[in-house]
Parts: sequence; structure tokens; C-alpha cells
Amino acid sequence: MKKFHILTIFPEFFEGFKNTGIVSKAVKSGLVDINAVNLRDYATDKHRTVDDVVYGGGPGMLLKPEPIFRAYETISKEKKPYVLITEPWGRKFDQEFAYELSKKDEIIIICGRYEGVDERVKSIVDEEVSIGDFVLSGGEPAALVIMDAVIRLIPGVVGDKDSLRVDSFSDGLLGYPNYTRPPVYRGMEVPKVLRSGNHKLIGIWRRWKQIENTYKKRPDLLDKVNLSEKDKIILQNIKAGVDFEDFIKKYNV
Amino acid sequence: MKKFHILTIFPEFFEGFKNTGIVSKAVKSGLVDINAVNLRDYATDKHRTVDDVVYGGGPGMLLKPEPIFRAYETISKEKKPYVLITEPWGRKFDQEFAYELSKKDEIIIICGRYEGVDERVKSIVDEEVSIGDFVLSGGEPAALVIMDAVIRLIPGVVGDKDSLRVDSFSDGLLGYPNYTRPPVYRGMEVPKVLRSGNHKLIGIWRRWKQIENTYKKRPDLLDKVNLSEKDKIILQNIKAGVDFEDFIKKYNV
Repeated sequence: MKKFHILTIFPEFFEGFKNTGIVSKAVKSGLVDINAVNLRDYATDKHRTVDDVVYGGGPGMLLKPEPIFRAYETISKEKKPYVLITEPWGRKFDQEFAYELSKKDEIIIICGRYEGVDERVKSIVDEEVSIGDFVLSGGEPAALVIMDAVIRLIPGVVGDKDSLRVDSFSDGLLGYPNYTRPPVYRGMEVPKVLRSGNHKLIGIWRRWKQIENTYKKRPDLLDKVNLSEKDKIILQNIKAGVDFEDFIKKYNV
Repeated sequence: MKKFHILTIFPEFFEGFKNTGIVSKAVKSGLVDINAVNLRDYATDKHRTVDDVVYGGGPGMLLKPEPIFRAYETISKEKKPYVLITEPWGRKFDQEFAYELSKKDEIIIICGRYEGVDERVKSIVDEEVSIGDFVLSGGEPAALVIMDAVIRLIPGVVGDKDSLRVDSFSDGLLGYPNYTRPPVYRGMEVPKVLRSGNHKLIGIWRRWKQIENTYKKRPDLLDKVNLSEKDKIILQNIKAGVDFEDFIKKYNV
């Protein structure tokens, strides 16, 4: 079982997340445990103070070191978990990082608030992580995103129905468009090829769309991908402005 | 008032988010309304079906177009909100994007699930958005992150205590380390300069640390920033391996 300990002053933040979709299933089937630790429970005074003013002056409040150290020590008595803290300048969270974390048994995520966290907390941190170049109200939304991305990589969590998406990052190209019933909706028709039953043609169309999507929306990715000879012919035709229909005729597919 | 409509099959996902911290305050004070719309309420059959198989074959299920279109039309009867959909290949969400969204009165975020969403839904979408190069179980965590980043930019939401962090992205440099009481904790001491009461010196130390942090952790950012002459001298000294203490003596600050 993989265990997440989230050190936070808002443990209730994670209730909806824990009780929804595949995360809820993973928790109920015992594959994952999400332990939202209330830092106030580890405060040292009767007011359960978790924050204090900044040395040297400045606006806002910092999370105090004591509740974090005490929570950390209680959790890691038997075994040291891998400790992350959310920081704007941390290592950028990506799918590779998610894979690495999916190999760890036990993870602590420290969620900052207000102006941040007392710097000494960094002494127990293995890695600083950032989910992107934007400012959040605290570490909780980032912790939630990290858990979500990691949990779906744990074997057994994603079932057939919610199958691991044939996604953008698995082969370095963007995905192809998908359609479901009805065949015509508000005047918009599902491409005929997808209703043809011709699986060879459907395969070629989807590859075409993947390459076309990537070329139009994220051309930078094309430099990093090993395209097959067939892929390269498709890309040439897309660049030359050839239609898929004409391409099919031209190559007599 | 800014209004968010989240089109989702898991409206309960957002409960913890709505009831926590500054978001909760913003909702209670009427600055923000978060409307989690259950797509099942807009299904057209008695089983409240929201998904169906993929045309052309493939694993997983797609969100059907009808519930999304019907929810969208109900919401946008009087005024057309700005419509986002979470997609791995969407425009990268960053602080600038958050600022743009903070200027819109009403925003719809469509959360995909399973293999994705019927492509025809894109006809009502203004922008595809991605919060990063990682795969999530659905659009909900991304929608939550987007709302969090946007809500804290709405005037009146962030108060004095939770003041807008002197953060990484406001001036293009990373932040400086912060400390709070106690002055010594587990053998770790708060830097003496911060307890000196010398605010000129504290200002220089913090700038030094900002430049040092940026140089060590995100040197790419230094190319994009307009450094002052003083900043450039600090950077030169950091690059030359000079200590802050020695720097202070050298320049007789």
C-alpha cells in the first residue's frame, strides 16, 4: 500500500478528493491511504498556534517549525517517508516525476500557507516541488494534483473502464479526437471514417490526427519524438496542406 | 461577483475546496460563486448516462455531448461565459493566464473524464487549458488549481494576514528564505541579520538571497529579468563565491 501524509492546516480540503472517482476506489480497496494531518494537532501551545510573524519584518505569517517537525517525527518513527514541500521554485512536476513518486511506499507532502514556511523545515525535506509557474493560495491544491497523478499510476488503481488514456505523454505526441453517439448532434457529424468499420483506415486516420494536432498545437514536441517512416510521410503531407481524403487516394490506402 | 461553473460528474469533489481558507472566505463574502454543475442532471435518459463508447473502437468511455451542451445552454441563457476545457495539449496555465481569467466575470470549466470528451464539445470552447505535462484522472484537479490561482487575484479576496506573497513571479526572481520564532530550533539558528533590527541590511540580505536562490535553482530566469546596477554587483559577487558577510565588509554597507 502506498501512503500519503499531507501536513496541512486544512485537512478538510482533501475530503472531496478522497471520496471521488478512482481515488475513492483506490482508498476503499486498500491500495492507497491518504492521511491528512492537521498541523494544529502538533502545536505546542493551548491556542494550537501554527503560524507566527516573519523575522526581519514583512507582511503575512509563516508556518512555525515546531508543528511540522513534531508531525514529521511522529509519522516517521518506524520508517522515513520521502518528504516533499510545495515551493514555486521547486523541481517542476511532470509525468516522469509522477512515475518516480509512484515507486515510493510512503510520501509526506508539506503544504505551505501565508508567506510560506520557516526555512529550517527544509532540513527534513528531500525535494521541493512546483506544479507550475502560477501562485496558489497554499500548497493544498498542488498536493492534491501530485497525489492524483501518482495514484493513477499505482498498479490496480485504473480499471478497464477508466483505462490509462492513450494520452499525449505516453508516446510523445498529442492524442487524436474522439467521438461517441449520437452520430450527428446539432448538425455536427462524427467523421465517416470512424463509422466505417475499416480498422486499418481508422488507425491511419488517428495517427494522422495525432501528428496534425501535434504539428499545429505543440510543434516543439515533434523534435523530441522518433517518427517512423510512415509518420514522416504523413507529416510531409500535413505540412504540404494535403487533405486526409486526398492522402488516402494518393497512397491508395 | 465572479462566477465559476464547473461541469463535472463529481460535483462533490469541490466541497473541501469551497469550504477552506481564502476561497471559503471569498465565497461567504459574496466575491465569488462556485457552481459545481452535475452533468448527470443534464443527461437525457432515465439512467442519467453521461458517457458512451468510442466510435472506431478503443478502450474507455467518452463523455457524451448532450449533457455538456444542455448544461452550457442553461448556464449561458443570459450571458455567454468564457469556456475552458482541460486538455493535456491546451495552453499552458501560468500566472499571466490567471490574470487574464481574473478579468472575466463568468467562467465555465468543462472537466473531462475517462478517455476524454466528445470532440464536438470543442465547438463551444473558447480555450483549451493544461496545468502541466502530467496526466490526471480527470479535469477536476486542474479546474480546482485554476480557480484557486484566479480567486486569489480578485480584489478583496486576499487580506492583510494572507497578504499577496512577495513571490517568485511578481518580480521575476525567486523569493528569499523566511524565519519565525523560535530563534534557535533543534540547533538551527535564524540568521543574525534578520534579528539585527537593521532594516537596510535586512533589505540587502533578502535581495542577495533572492538573486542567489535564482542563480542556483532557476538561472534561466536571470536572463529575463531587468537587474539594477546593485543587483548586478550582488550577482557578480555570488558568482565569484563571495560570502554575504565578506560582501558587507567589502562594500562597507
